Amino acid sequence: MAPVTGAGEEMHALVERLYPLCRSITGDGVRATLDIVGEYLPLRVHEVPTGTQVLDWTVPQEWNIRDAYVADASGRRVVDFAASSLHVLGYSVPVRARMELSELREHLYTLPEQPSLVPYRTSYYAPRWGFCLAQETLDAMEEGEYEVCVDSTLADGHLTYAEHVVPGQVADEVLVSCHTCHPSLANDNLAGIAVAVFLARALAETAPWYTYRFVFAPGTIGAITWLARNKERIDQVKHGLVLACAGDRGPLTYKRSRRGDAGIDRAVRHVLRDSGRPHSVEEFTPYGYDERQYCSPGFDLGVGSLSRTPYARYPEYHTSGDDPGFVSPEAMADTLDVCREAFSVLDRDRRYVNLSPYGEPQLGRRGLYDSLGGRSDAKQAEMAMLWVLSMSDGEHGLLDVAERAGLPFDTVAAAADALHASGLIKA
Amino acid sequence: MAPVTGAGEEMHALVERLYPLCRSITGDGVRATLDIVGEYLPLRVHEVPTGTQVLDWTVPQEWNIRDAYVADASGRRVVDFAASSLHVLGYSVPVRARMELSELREHLYTLPEQPSLVPYRTSYYAPRWGFCLAQETLDAMEEGEYEVCVDSTLADGHLTYAEHVVPGQVADEVLVSCHTCHPSLANDNLAGIAVAVFLARALAETAPWYTYRFVFAPGTIGAITWLARNKERIDQVKHGLVLACAGDRGPLTYKRSRRGDAGIDRAVRHVLRDSGRPHSVEEFTPYGYDERQYCSPGFDLGVGSLSRTPYARYPEYHTSGDDPGFVSPEAMADTLDVCREAFSVLDRDRRYVNLSPYGEPQLGRRGLYDSLGGRSDAKQAEMAMLWVLSMSDGEHGLLDVAERAGLPFDTVAAAADALHASGLIKA
Amino acid sequence: MAPVTGAGEEMHALVERLYPLCRSITGDGVRATLDIVGEYLPLRVHEVPTGTQVLDWTVPQEWNIRDAYVADASGRRVVDFAASSLHVLGYSVPVRARMELSELREHLYTLPEQPSLVPYRTSYYAPRWGFCLAQETLDAMEEGEYEVCVDSTLADGHLTYAEHVVPGQVADEVLVSCHTCHPSLANDNLAGIAVAVFLARALAETAPWYTYRFVFAPGTIGAITWLARNKERIDQVKHGLVLACAGDRGPLTYKRSRRGDAGIDRAVRHVLRDSGRPHSVEEFTPYGYDERQYCSPGFDLGVGSLSRTPYARYPEYHTSGDDPGFVSPEAMADTLDVCREAFSVLDRDRRYVNLSPYGEPQLGRRGLYDSLGGRSDAKQAEMAMLWVLSMSDGEHGLLDVAERAGLPFDTVAAAADALHASGLIKA
Repeated sequence: MAPVTGAGEEMHALVERLYPLCRSITGDGVRATLDIVGEYLPLRVHEVPTGTQVLDWTVPQEWNIRDAYVADASGRRVVDFAASSLHVLGYSVPVRARMELSELREHLYTLPEQPSLVPYRTSYYAPRWGFCLAQETLDAMEEGEYEVCVDSTLADGHLTYAEHVVPGQVADEVLVSCHTCHPSLANDNLAGIAVAVFLARALAETAPWYTYRFVFAPGTIGAITWLARNKERIDQVKHGLVLACAGDRGPLTYKRSRRGDAGIDRAVRHVLRDSGRPHSVEEFTPYGYDERQYCSPGFDLGVGSLSRTPYARYPEYHTSGDDPGFVSPEAMADTLDVCREAFSVLDRDRRYVNLSPYGEPQLGRRGLYDSLGGRSDAKQAEMAMLWVLSMSDGEHGLLDVAERAGLPFDTVAAAADALHASGLIKA
Repeated sequence: MAPVTGAGEEMHALVERLYPLCRSITGDGVRATLDIVGEYLPLRVHEVPTGTQVLDWTVPQEWNIRDAYVADASGRRVVDFAASSLHVLGYSVPVRARMELSELREHLYTLPEQPSLVPYRTSYYAPRWGFCLAQETLDAMEEGEYEVCVDSTLADGHLTYAEHVVPGQVADEVLVSCHTCHPSLANDNLAGIAVAVFLARALAETAPWYTYRFVFAPGTIGAITWLARNKERIDQVKHGLVLACAGDRGPLTYKRSRRGDAGIDRAVRHVLRDSGRPHSVEEFTPYGYDERQYCSPGFDLGVGSLSRTPYARYPEYHTSGDDPGFVSPEAMADTLDVCREAFSVLDRDRRYVNLSPYGEPQLGRRGLYDSLGGRSDAKQAEMAMLWVLSMSDGEHGLLDVAERAGLPFDTVAAAADALHASGLIKA
Repeated sequence: MAPVTGAGEEMHALVERLYPLCRSITGDGVRATLDIVGEYLPLRVHEVPTGTQVLDWTVPQEWNIRDAYVADASGRRVVDFAASSLHVLGYSVPVRARMELSELREHLYTLPEQPSLVPYRTSYYAPRWGFCLAQETLDAMEEGEYEVCVDSTLADGHLTYAEHVVPGQVADEVLVSCHTCHPSLANDNLAGIAVAVFLARALAETAPWYTYRFVFAPGTIGAITWLARNKERIDQVKHGLVLACAGDRGPLTYKRSRRGDAGIDRAVRHVLRDSGRPHSVEEFTPYGYDERQYCSPGFDLGVGSLSRTPYARYPEYHTSGDDPGFVSPEAMADTLDVCREAFSVLDRDRRYVNLSPYGEPQLGRRGLYDSLGGRSDAKQAEMAMLWVLSMSDGEHGLLDVAERAGLPFDTVAAAADALHASGLIKA
């Protein structure tokens, strides 16, 4: 499958545009993010009111922030939200006060072991305020009084998420989900958002079998909200993929769904293995991104998660080190390619029934042997036809055939097309 | 789980008390043994008359012996039952005669390759008499006439076995069985008896879930007798363990039940693996101790066998070398610990159903996250809760969770307790 | 199992007799081959008319050939069918012409990388004529006019195949099939034919349980014809083996049936492994010899394939290098031995039910313990009895027992016989 030309650079540009916005699980930063995404893809934006019951949870108050800083006695802002959205503790309640550094310290978060980096911290459900800053900045702060300002509001409002649908030939759906709640962190998850955007655009050009639904929603509460509002039709979701940490320079990591051998698990594994890329495939754990929600036992959807370096395994994770320079156009393009290839497998992985199962059908009479013969491609095509005929007993799909036969999925799918055209197999 | 203080020494003292008695599959030596065990544990002693049909077998005549010796021409006893119960062939018929050494030889059993050791031999079902002695003793015997005396009786009587029950919260039972038929052999099986005694005492202090039934019975015919008399209620026996060779200094060996993955198999394996002890886990074979009977295909109970060095794999096996010095307090205490830990797992290994299976329940709202956060224990407890929620679909038990999650069983069980207390799961 | 004395030499002599004949998928060469085989075994020969519908195929016209050559201007035959049946393209249409070498070249087949060998080529379903020759011969041919003659006929006639049946105690059948369509190629498949012949003779001396049916038929169309004519009774075929490439000096290779764990798969694997022979066991592929037809999904018979070096993996494959010197008496005798041993396992691999499944039955009372004891054979026989009793739950057969117990199949079968004679198990 040929790469989408220039997609890497375009995705990186999107990451850079989105980077400065202050996202959280609610608020105008999310809306601004979806506005930009909406320039690339038509989105249906959903606003869910504060207080709405969603599964075991309740949609919280909406948080918005205009300004936040710590200023020293001279009025100089030593910590300034304007410089980076990471500087304010997410969901900080408003505050405007003067206090000694000794008192202020309780509200300051640093990474003593990574002294030049600003950490990312939130307090969604406990009312607090605070600032995140580099340890080096803190070390340079002199004792004395500081002015503290968090100009935020926590008020009834909405939780915002968006959907984009690539219509397919059937109503059965493939879900692609990425979280939109993290502020200025490039790999986590602007890269995932960018890959999802370009994946949707690429799929639209393929007239896919499945309907592909893209969900851009805040982590945990957003996925839970989406699930709560789609509970009645959840059986339509046949496969799904959570995209996160999709742009760093590490090799790809696929985390299986809770089922462990769902279609998406097999398709991604096949593509990763067949491509020869360095990669790893990991078992499901009930921790991570929103696959936690999609794979909760009541839903148990076949939803895996594709990352490059998984969360918490790179030192820049949840710090100001996860900036646009941490993700690369090439890595995002590579993630995009694997998604497209895996969905291409998923989309064509059907079960056929051999209509001529007693002995081999005479392929030659039907012109199914390459008349030139002897070429390696022709031999592989013949083997693929024999394998499809042998395994098409209604129990095995084309991906089963490809894996059992050790043949590329494309070769097997092409063989199935030829056999189907000859009336030797039926879907 | 803290070791039982001083249990090793106490068990060893019990082995030493029991060692001199002449046990067999019937007779007063067994009764004397059970009398001593009864000082530690209340026992219900069963006497089953000779001739009773038990499954495919018949309870044999009772054997008792008062004296036995081979004396030389001077009247000196060169082989003397009073010195060791091993010296007489088990179930020897009575004899009183004078004969030449050449004739006597047919009745003498030695170990030419272990010339200083006395072998252990029996002839339960063929009427014979004989003596067991060291090859060195035989080599020192001069030709000439010897006086031979076996002052034994074989007569209608009873087969004797005993039970002790630790009552549980449910009538479902765990069976602990050890053979009581071997004479002066410490590892085989006085150590097993001693571990069983102290295991019963330790379990009584834990208010266990299961009812634990301890069976002290002669090998083969005793287990068969117990099974014959409990056939109607055998379905109550959910798990079981045969204790044998439980005191030597080798690492622990667990032999799986015939089922191969019964609860006891999984619990013991988990404890052995999780503890980091050197150990081995072996597949079932239809040979060994009374697991042969409990696992016979008609019963097919989930009964495994725990030993240190298994039968016939140590040179002292079935010889006078298997004396109280061959077993150690530390080894018996270690066997006891593993039994207690494995039963502790078995006792708490229940299946729960997640009552909030759609998405993750909000643990924070219920105070289930450690409010301090960040500690490794708190993180492990959180992971354990997420795993229990994810896997509690009625199909998996807590031991499944522990093994799949790679977490200690205790952590998982504690997480289940917390979730249960919060009403998030039900048994 | 003792080898059949002299069988290797006799099989090799048969290969040498059959070698010169010009076989194809129809014609008198096949009949002459079956005439010779008929001297060793009574055969039932079937003649199926041209045009008969057989599954998805049609029996083709019959091909016969009397002479074929390429002669140079001097009249010297530079390629001559009389020297080797390989020289003519199989199923060549008749031709008699003069033409320049440049024109003739299109009809000449060589092996440029094996310049001294004549290839084997056919064109069954496309009407062509041609000659196969050594590249060295072609290189020596000077430009100029050549006389070309293929004195063949393609006309309505018959497809010829034969059967030999070794009657068994039950009507259930084991199928042994080998292809008879290849001209002068020793390993492919005269060795297979010879092994089949001597296997049938050896089986006849054993009063086997199964009925053994030997099919000598042309590849593909022959097997398809046999299947078409036996479709109604195909359920009687319980096991089967295709013999091909059975005589070269390489180690044995067994290719599993499509089922993968059919009785024949397990029996051959057991014998190969247990014997300590170097060998390999390969998974099924839908390519190869007539197992392709027998294992087609509509039939899905438990038919494997036994070869020494499989097709296309030796440089002599489908060339004049595959001559009687390429196969050895010792290799054919070895293939024969493995077939006999595997069928001996298959023939005795029955499931029993333990009639005394509650506890162990008292073997001693029934004289089932060797009264002398202590011998290794007696110990192994005892273990085999205990294993048969333990596993005879109607789910496991004697081969399961042998594999699980790690005992030779013969020991297990003998134990089952003893238990059966004692009334402890039933079939």
